[in-house]
Amino acid sequence: MCLGIVYVMDEPDDELITSVFARACPSRGVLADVTGRWGGLALAALHEGSYRFNALRRRVDGVSEKMLAQTLQSLERDGLVRREVQATIPPRVEYSLTPLGAQVAERMQALIDLLEGEIVQVVEAQQAYDRTHA
Amino acid sequence: MCLGIVYVMDEPDDELITSVFARACPSRGVLADVTGRWGGLALAALHEGSYRFNALRRRVDGVSEKMLAQTLQSLERDGLVRREVQATIPPRVEYSLTPLGAQVAERMQALIDLLEGEIVQVVEAQQAYDRTHA
Repeated sequence: MCLGIVYVMDEPDDELITSVFARACPSRGVLADVTGRWGGLALAALHEGSYRFNALRRRVDGVSEKMLAQTLQSLERDGLVRREVQATIPPRVEYSLTPLGAQVAERMQALIDLLEGEIVQVVEAQQAYDRTHA
Repeated sequence: MCLGIVYVMDEPDDELITSVFARACPSRGVLADVTGRWGGLALAALHEGSYRFNALRRRVDGVSEKMLAQTLQSLERDGLVRREVQATIPPRVEYSLTPLGAQVAERMQALIDLLEGEIVQVVEAQQAYDRTHA
């Protein structure tokens, strides 16, 4: 169940009940931003340190300029990524994680570490599945 | 860098280098399955216990029959979800997590717990962003 954020904001002392399982819950929206096609990779990259846009784009191999811009904008709006424009000529735009973004990125990284570490087991499962479902 | 799974399979004693940042790396594919639109929610639901298809569909509020079937098939192929057909009339199909799936679901749940717990902070950031970018 998700009581909705309006209710939560009106009655800050009440217990907050959020659930990503409820389609209207704001927590599902931020989960989608974090785990979207490029969200997880962008967070994991910024977990290494701050990046300028083009360097981040090279790190997240395969992402288009448009998709990376959209991804960063969503994460900035959620308060997970900080966008800082430095007053140089030309202006330098740098992206980094907010404190909450760093916590989220840490958990994303734990998920990635597990998948990378068990990739042989996963590929063996895929090969076995493909043999029996051919 | 990702040396590719063919190399890994040929030389099992060599050090395995996988990276979700490399677009051709198999680890990126499984990350996409796990963090796709419905993958994370399906894993989190199955983390609660095994489900029959229709019950799981009700739990993952908003998912279509087709999308849930595709999601479960990808996760089964990756070796994260077990699909068991029981010889009843009519046959009963139950989905549960494999041991590796349970590990993955645990890390996904840790990510969800954080986002649900910090949803007020996220929504406040979204409101501040919308005020300054209107």
